Formats: sequence, structure tokens, C-alpha cells
Amino acid sequence: MSIRSLIVAAAVLAATASAQAQSAFAKPEDAVKYRQAAFTVLGAHFSRIGAMVQGRVPFDAKAAQDNAAIVVAMSTLPWAGFTPDTQNLKSRTKPEAWMEMDKVRAGADKMVKAVAELQAAARTGNLDAVKKTFGEAAATCKACHDAYRE
Amino acid sequence: MSIRSLIVAAAVLAATASAQAQSAFAKPEDAVKYRQAAFTVLGAHFSRIGAMVQGRVPFDAKAAQDNAAIVVAMSTLPWAGFTPDTQNLKSRTKPEAWMEMDKVRAGADKMVKAVAELQAAARTGNLDAVKKTFGEAAATCKACHDAYRE
Repeated sequence: MSIRSLIVAAAVLAATASAQAQSAFAKPEDAVKYRQAAFTVLGAHFSRIGAMVQGRVPFDAKAAQDNAAIVVAMSTLPWAGFTPDTQNLKSRTKPEAWMEMDKVRAGADKMVKAVAELQAAARTGNLDAVKKTFGEAAATCKACHDAYRE
Repeated sequence: MSIRSLIVAAAVLAATASAQAQSAFAKPEDAVKYRQAAFTVLGAHFSRIGAMVQGRVPFDAKAAQDNAAIVVAMSTLPWAGFTPDTQNLKSRTKPEAWMEMDKVRAGADKMVKAVAELQAAARTGNLDAVKKTFGEAAATCKACHDAYRE
């Protein structure tokens, strides 16, 4: 066995172990509840930045940063809850999502990157930069919601 | 100051920052949904460490660390959802919680510190340290659940 195939085998083992640790839901219902919960927390903190962007509450650079940090932490979580065994459970996920899960994942990746940009902007304390990156991040949310959420 | 006390101090600072990140929920129902969602995500990742501690899945130091990081990030969040205007809404929160909110907050602080210790232990990659701190963190969950959750 070559060094390269050993490295590949080790990587596959590591990925498998990590996937097992990350995606072990006892029941499919738990996976749905988990992904919905992660979106709820994500959305709550994202919308607090939105309130500042839209001028509904005064801009507070520290609060924008704190909320952006939580948004970033949450952004990678919900996707593990879209397990194939949840496909027939009641949720707002459209059937199209299951047929185009590669596009859902690609959309998720865009969102993860966009909220990282939002966090970077929030760190500058510049409201215009926050507005711009918030709008771009919101567009990544909307793209998937329009296509894949009832 | 030891590394461990620095980590705990950082956790307390993060809790303060997180409290600042919170602002009013549009409706009391949103506060209930938010705190329940935060507990759901927290519990999902805490129980993945529990599965390793109890030997139900093999110990994976990286997965333990990743899960502990999410637990720590979530640990400061739910408390903002216990707003007085949610007192009469349906939830598993016992009436006692509203009469003893100072004790609920003190219990929350204990949990925040305990999961920071768990994260510090997970970073060492030592299963015995993870077991010990996981047990201590689980005890802080149980104390509040026994007293304040139906």
C-alpha cells in the first residue's frame, strides 16, 4: 500500500468518524427539529442586524459584531439535519430540495461565505459595509427559500 | 492566571457580549421559540459528546472538540428568551422559574462555566478529562431541569 493510499484511507476514515459524530440523530424527527432549531437561532440573530441595517434600531457596532459572530457559528449547522430519512416528514422543505440536494449544499456554502463577509464588515464598525454585506447575505437566504422552502 | 481560568473568564465575557447582542423579540412567542431552539441545538451537540463519554460511539477527540465548541457558543443564548412576557405562554418552564429567576440565572452561569471546562478538557484530547467535565456539566443541566422544567 502506497503512502498516498494510506493517507487517502486515513482521510476517509477520519471523514467517516467525523460524519458519524456529527450526524448521529437518534430519530429522523430529531434531525428535522435540529435543523429547524438551528435556523430559528440563526434567523433571530440575523434579523437583529437587519433591524440596524433598516434603521429600525440604532446602529450599535458591538451588537452587530456579537450577532454576526452567532450567525457565523450557526451558519454551518442546519445542513446536517437534511438527512435522507427525513424526506417524508412534515416540514417546509419542498420535494425539489431532495432532488437537488447538491444545489441546496451549494446554496448553503454561499450563505456560509456571505455571513463570514458580514462578520468581517461588522468588525470594521462601518454601517455601509454592514448594509452591503447584510444585503448580499440576505440574498443567499432568499435564493434557497424561494426555491426550496414552502 | 492559568489557561483554564483564562478560558473560563473568556466564557463569562462571551456571556456578557452575548447578552448585549440580544434585543427585544417581536412577540413573546418568538422568545419562547428562540430559547427552545437554542436548547435543542445545545442538547444535540452535548449529547454527541455524551455518546462518546458513555462508549456508545468511539471517542473521537476532534469531534469532541467540535461539538464542545458549539455547546459553548450555544450555552449563553437561551437565557435571553426567558422574558417576563413569556411567563404565561405554554412551555415546559415551571412557575417556580419565574419566582426564582435569580437562581435560574445563577444556574445558567454555572452551566456556562462548566461547558467552558468541558471544552478545555476536549482540547486536551484526554477522554478521562472529557468524562469528568462532561459529568460536571451534565449535573448543572440536571439541577435546573429538576427544579424548573416540567
